[in-house]
Amino acid sequence: MAKIVVDVMLKPEILDPQGNAVASALPRLGFSFAKSVRQGKRFEIEVEGEPTAAQLAEVEKAAEVLLSNPVIENYVVRVEK
Amino acid sequence: MAKIVVDVMLKPEILDPQGNAVASALPRLGFSFAKSVRQGKRFEIEVEGEPTAAQLAEVEKAAEVLLSNPVIENYVVRVEK
Repeated sequence: MAKIVVDVMLKPEILDPQGNAVASALPRLGFSFAKSVRQGKRFEIEVEGEPTAAQLAEVEKAAEVLLSNPVIENYVVRVEK
Repeated sequence: MAKIVVDVMLKPEILDPQGNAVASALPRLGFSFAKSVRQGKRFEIEVEGEPTAAQLAEVEKAAEVLLSNPVIENYVVRVEK
């Protein structure tokens, strides 16, 4: 059983109200480390056996049509050990 | 400028309706690779310079009190190159 991870983040030029809310809450809680915060989605997909190149291509396609909105979001597909 | 990533996922024993919705949508769209899907959150935090151990400890604390609900969620903090 292998795990394929798809990270979906808003494109850098798109305003991220959730990330901004976190960024402004941090100093109120006494945390001063953050210059900026962006919030996105993470999908963990379990597949049978070792993921093949064909499977990864399928996941890329699914990320494009279902998991992300390519107009405003970027996605990254990777295999996680 | 370095990037610290916090991944927040529901604990394995917690029902994940969003992940299940994705898992049942995939076959309808012709994708058959997924045995299971879990959906979580990803935070990208930019910090000035190289992250120090003290900074990472602060991020861990922020993940615990702000970014996750430790009753139902697990989080992972890591530095991304």
